[in-house]
This record gives sequence, C-alpha cells and structure tokens, in this order.
Amino acid sequence: MRIHPVILSGGSGTRLWPRSRKVRPKPFLPLLGTRTLFEESLARVEDTTRYARPIVVAGDAHVPLIEEQACGGVDIIVEPSAKNTAPAIALAAARLPREAVMLVCPSDHHIADVEAFGRGVMQAAALAQDGRLVAFGITPTAPETGYGYIRQGGPLGEGHEVASFVEKPDLERAQAYLDSGDYVWNGGIFAFRAGDYLDELGKHRPAMAEAVAAAVRDGSIQDGRFHPDAAAFDAIEGDSIDYAVMERTTRAAVVAADMGWSDIGSWSALAEARRCDAQGNSADGAELVDCRNVLVESDGKRVSAIGLTDVVIVVDGDEVLVTTREGAQKVGKLHGAANQ
Amino acid sequence: MRIHPVILSGGSGTRLWPRSRKVRPKPFLPLLGTRTLFEESLARVEDTTRYARPIVVAGDAHVPLIEEQACGGVDIIVEPSAKNTAPAIALAAARLPREAVMLVCPSDHHIADVEAFGRGVMQAAALAQDGRLVAFGITPTAPETGYGYIRQGGPLGEGHEVASFVEKPDLERAQAYLDSGDYVWNGGIFAFRAGDYLDELGKHRPAMAEAVAAAVRDGSIQDGRFHPDAAAFDAIEGDSIDYAVMERTTRAAVVAADMGWSDIGSWSALAEARRCDAQGNSADGAELVDCRNVLVESDGKRVSAIGLTDVVIVVDGDEVLVTTREGAQKVGKLHGAANQ
Repeated sequence: MRIHPVILSGGSGTRLWPRSRKVRPKPFLPLLGTRTLFEESLARVEDTTRYARPIVVAGDAHVPLIEEQACGGVDIIVEPSAKNTAPAIALAAARLPREAVMLVCPSDHHIADVEAFGRGVMQAAALAQDGRLVAFGITPTAPETGYGYIRQGGPLGEGHEVASFVEKPDLERAQAYLDSGDYVWNGGIFAFRAGDYLDELGKHRPAMAEAVAAAVRDGSIQDGRFHPDAAAFDAIEGDSIDYAVMERTTRAAVVAADMGWSDIGSWSALAEARRCDAQGNSADGAELVDCRNVLVESDGKRVSAIGLTDVVIVVDGDEVLVTTREGAQKVGKLHGAANQ
Repeated sequence: MRIHPVILSGGSGTRLWPRSRKVRPKPFLPLLGTRTLFEESLARVEDTTRYARPIVVAGDAHVPLIEEQACGGVDIIVEPSAKNTAPAIALAAARLPREAVMLVCPSDHHIADVEAFGRGVMQAAALAQDGRLVAFGITPTAPETGYGYIRQGGPLGEGHEVASFVEKPDLERAQAYLDSGDYVWNGGIFAFRAGDYLDELGKHRPAMAEAVAAAVRDGSIQDGRFHPDAAAFDAIEGDSIDYAVMERTTRAAVVAADMGWSDIGSWSALAEARRCDAQGNSADGAELVDCRNVLVESDGKRVSAIGLTDVVIVVDGDEVLVTTREGAQKVGKLHGAANQ
C-alpha cells in the first residue's frame, strides 16, 4: 500500500510580510536554507516505495509557483475559490479510490526531524487502515496560545483516542495543558482513507459533501490540471476540517510526534526554526555588533545592526520591517499587508 | 562694524552613515526639517546689517555642494588638503583685514535658539574688539563624555576669562563638571580679529603661520574661488585651533550661550534634536506600533516598526542600519563606513 500525499496550498502568510506577499506567498519562499517550505513538503514524501504521486490542492494564483517548484512531479487540483480545508481535502478524496490512505499536509510548515515525521506517518496510516481519521499531534514544547490543542484519550494502536479538540487557549490554560502531559498541538496534518473522510463529511456536512461531489463530477481537465466545476464549488459554505469533521466524528484518533515542527506562523517562529550562531543570531550577510537573538532577512540590501536583542529585521523591495520578536504577531495587521 | 562669518566645511560625518557618505556628507543633508545644516549655518548669519559676506573654507570635494546650497552668496577658499582647523581658519584670516572680527563656525552643527546665538555673537564680538580670542561655551545639559569642556575663570565683559581647556572627560568627571556649574562645552565656535589670530598662531605655531602666509601669497583665484598654493599648504603639520592656539594663548575668553546647540554627532544626537511626537518618535512616513523614542530616517522605502524602544532605523540606498540609541556611537566603526 502506498500513501497518497495531499498538499494544501492555501495560506497567504500575511504574518511574514513583507517577505511573503500575495504574488509570492509564504509556501514558495526559501525561508529556511535553500528549499522553500513547499519544496520541503514534497521532499518529505518523495520516497516512491512509500508514497504515491502527490496531489496539490491550490488556488489559481499559486499554480505557476507550484509547477515551477514541483517540476511536474505532482497532480494539481485548482480550487475555484477559497473555501477552507474541509472542501479542499474533499476534492482530493473524491478523485482517489475509496481505499486510498491520504496524508493531508499543509504546504507551509517546517519539520526539522523528517525521520520522526516518517514514523508518525506509518503509525497514522496503520490507524487509517482500521477506519480511523487520524490527526497528527505535535508534542508541545511551550505554552503556545496560537495553536489548537488535542486532548489525548486512551491508547489506540500506536496512537490514542481523541478525548477532545480544544480551541486556542489563553496563556494560563496553555500552561496547564503543557503541564498535564495529556495535550498535543493540532498540527494540521491528517491521515485517513478517502472513503472514510467523504463518509464522515457526508454525515456531518451533507450539503458540502454533495457540492464537492457535484463539482468533481462536472469538473474538467485543462492543461493537465483538474478544475472542479466552479458553480457547484463556489456555492459551498467554507469550513475547516477541524470544525466540519474532526471535532464531530466518533472515529477520530491522534498520533503524537516530536518532530521539530513549526508552522512558521510569524517572524518570531521563523527565528526559532533558524539555525543560529552562539549569540542566537541568524543574519547571513549582515554585520551585527552587540546583538543577541536577532534575525535578519534581506533581499540583498546590506543590513547593519548594533545593540539589539530579540529583534527581527526584514528588508524586501521598498519595504523595511523592524519588530521585536514579541511584536511579530502584529505584522499581519500592518497597513494593508494582507493585500500586498 | 560688520562681523565676518567663516564657515568650516571639513567633517566627513561617518557617524551618520549610511545617510552621510563621502559624496554627500553630513553638512549638506536636510537632517532637521527642510534645510541642511550648512544652509542653517548660512541662515544664522544672513542679516547683512550685522554680517559681511561669509567665507567658506572647504575641500575640493565639497565645493559643488557649497555652490549649490549657498547660491553664490559666499566666498570660497579651497583647502588644498585637510590640515584640521588651525590652518583652515588662518587661510580666511589672511584674506581679511587685520581688524576684521571673524566668527568661526562649523558647518554641521544645529542651533535651535538662533536669537540666543545672535546675542552670544554680539558679546563675543565685543570681547574680540578688545583683542580677545573668544570661544563659545555651550551651557551643558548632560554629563557628555564626547565633548571638550572649558572651565570658566573670572568675569570679563559679558563673558569670562578661560581658566583652562579640558579634554573629553570620563563620565564621573563629566558629572562633576556639570555639577560644579563652572564648566561649559567647547562648541567649536570662535570669534577674534583676524590679526589677533594670526599673531597668536605666529607666536605658538610659527611654521604653520608662515606656511599659511606663503600659501595665501602664492595662491590664485580660479572660477571665483581662492586656491591657496598647494605646495606650501600641503607641507603644514595639521592641528586644531584648540591645540594650536586657544589652549596656549593668554588672550583667551569664553562666552557662554544656552542656545539649543547640538553637533549632531550621532544618530542618537539627531534623535534628540528632532521634533518628536508624544511617544518620543520621529518617523515621517513610517508606521510605528507600540514604539517609543524611535527615529526613522528613510530615503523613500517604507519602514514599519513594532515594539521598539530607543532605536534608530536608517534606510539609504542599499544600506539599512538599525541601532539602539546607545549603540549609535559605534556607527562610524562599521565596515569601512568612513570610506563610503
């Protein structure tokens, strides 16, 4: 049995502005080393003895970037409109055999320990073949308030039952979750058989499931890419896989993985994922004097910094961003950044 | 009697890199408002009932900038080489009548209270007409370690005798000077009769005085500018007016002025001289979130800053500088900044 990777390319990455922009969004930038996050996502599933040819579900605007970076190695499903993850995953599921085990991955996350990821995939795939809808849980390393959490229930194969999905907590609760040892972060990575996902979607969101089925039935292939029928798809009320399926199904399971995961959800998160020097700086080509924990990301202009601690400096085209690591979460709200 | 302004245009301003560069040095930049520091220097002496036509002493490289910004309103003496202030001032003195009262000013300082400056000039000129060599003392506002100090002696006209000139002190001494009330900063502004300066220079630095006399005697006017003879001038061992004359003469006097003076000697000093908003920020065109005491100076690129305190951000061409105010004193030592 080979696993079918389904890579979702949806995010705009406004919190990594000004590097991430509408025309060149986060998944397609070489933020860590020489490969982009999208290329990393493909490389993690490149072993053809284990993985079938990946399916990428993406909006029209991302298609040229995907084709450039995937070098023809993927099948592309073009979302007629952005409807969140539940319908996007359903499009891929409807194009696969019911028995196919899908591995759903975001295209813009970083995983430092690819072997641990691979072990988790095998554990999740085993549970998926037993009819489970499996979420990857990330072993938490800090009381993060920006992620959803999963409370693990009793043991199940090499994973656990899901006791409950938990919304993003405040700091106090996040610390309690971390202390308890029962909670893992919801990493947005899932494994299940295509038919099981569609069945559960049909049970909990029948209108969505029908609309996706219609969009796929009336879709067409153009230039090698699959285009679902836009009229049917555009009518869908969008929702996430978490809300639409995972929190509702009785067949949920969770596999915990400690794999150096980051959603690179902010400049601060990128700074943490970067390899740093002894002073905690990551600043190729910049001259730093008396600096600690400084990240410099420049498009070529030379950056000089003196006396800074816990600061991120980003230079891109006609935009310069300087923020504390703590302030990095506010980047997405700067002057119309989302529209650039 | 009209006073003869002599404006020295010598500094390279490396501590204001990357805005200040060799081809566009500090005096000729609009760092405060719309006028450059050089234009400010001219405007302070524009009252033709009080002041004669200014003489500017400058190196060849500055001449085009001077002519552009002075609009033909000055006489220019072109220094064949940079020999510090004592010979530069002597060049101007040798071109003036012996009785002419000179007012020697740097071209790259800022004076907020121009009326107080004017009063100081009148007080200094009166002492100069009595044969004194008068230094302007700046009423100190902080225990600065970057300036020379003058210890004031007994009263003399509307000024004081000079008890002694004092080198740049350490912080402890600077604080003691400030507390005593007897000390003022040496602002690099002087008034004296041309003949008195040349006499004192001849007494304490006879070789320099003779070389300057020869350079002026054998000089020539080209395109309206006076060029001293290079061979004579280049042989001079350069020195400052402080070391060569003011610290040695028995005719020194000091006039204290509280005139909002700054030598704009660093980005931190510029930040202090700038008009700021209620949060202490000066950042035209930038978007600041949760920032205090932040100075942004950009050549047009948009700067966004989040969460910073006491930081200076400078964007100029292909260079970006981010420094704490405290670190600003190290700017001049960055990668070959002096040569750019």
